[in-house]
Amino acid sequence: MTSSTASLDLAAYIRDIPDFPQPGINFKDISPLLKSPEAFRACIDRLVEHYASLDIDYIVGIESRGFLVGAPLAYHMNKGFIPIRKPGKLPYKVERIDYTLEYGSGSLEIHADALGEGHRILVVDDLLATGGTVAATRALIERLGGNVVAAGFVVELEFLHGRDRLSGLDIHALLKY
Amino acid sequence: MTSSTASLDLAAYIRDIPDFPQPGINFKDISPLLKSPEAFRACIDRLVEHYASLDIDYIVGIESRGFLVGAPLAYHMNKGFIPIRKPGKLPYKVERIDYTLEYGSGSLEIHADALGEGHRILVVDDLLATGGTVAATRALIERLGGNVVAAGFVVELEFLHGRDRLSGLDIHALLKY
Repeated sequence: MTSSTASLDLAAYIRDIPDFPQPGINFKDISPLLKSPEAFRACIDRLVEHYASLDIDYIVGIESRGFLVGAPLAYHMNKGFIPIRKPGKLPYKVERIDYTLEYGSGSLEIHADALGEGHRILVVDDLLATGGTVAATRALIERLGGNVVAAGFVVELEFLHGRDRLSGLDIHALLKY
Repeated sequence: MTSSTASLDLAAYIRDIPDFPQPGINFKDISPLLKSPEAFRACIDRLVEHYASLDIDYIVGIESRGFLVGAPLAYHMNKGFIPIRKPGKLPYKVERIDYTLEYGSGSLEIHADALGEGHRILVVDDLLATGGTVAATRALIERLGGNVVAAGFVVELEFLHGRDRLSGLDIHALLKY
């Protein structure tokens, strides 16, 4: 990490969008962060630095914004990348989970041959809110025999207490609100 | 690039899935490539090498698999990343395009403030098929005043002649079928 990116304030690259996707929700938009080479580089470098000594086999990224963070992280940590996607997107045999969100329900899929018994996994997404999507992702990975050891995010909305649903995980977020 | 990744055969990491997403289509699944640290690294390194001397301002990635290739490419080329997404996903004001595909129709959106007059753009996706999605992406970028100068892919299905719809672009694919 260069000295210029080490001192960079990532929060200045997050844009608040009121009432998206629902009235009352203040959405944290990472578009300005992605658009800035310095901010995007600092974001990835800081996550790589945090997880440098973590013993894992694969990085699992959650569609779609989790891909933007998880893919560069996988490259730099020299680990394979496994996608978790919305139903019908993955072409091979899948394992699927249906789960409830604050507003309605969601479903996620992983390729049935994506990982195996005892594989150690780092889950990556852009944002930790209530933890519902990450908890569902963890359950999906465990069905295949994998072991989620850590979860990394750009932003954590602490007031939603997502960590409470993810006990036992090493959870890290670059920015907290 | 290390000598081991320079000689790596990327085609060995692409899996054929017959009849997905429609009967008669032989889907090129990049999951094995993503899952292999060596293959994923070689894929990104080869694209970075190809575009090293290209004069661009931003990389535009098309949701979702384009994110997996475009984000690491943006990091390594030290360029900002701009996402093109399905309708309703981007939180800020958007520019939208509706277009026809071989089987039905599609719509894409870009943030209205994502780029401006004269910005030079490299568009990235995992696969070039008929070129419809990339042509729509190009039209969207041009509406904002941008100039698509190149398009990069992991896989190109040459028999679908996607290049014919993308005249004037520097088009590069790592693997051709």
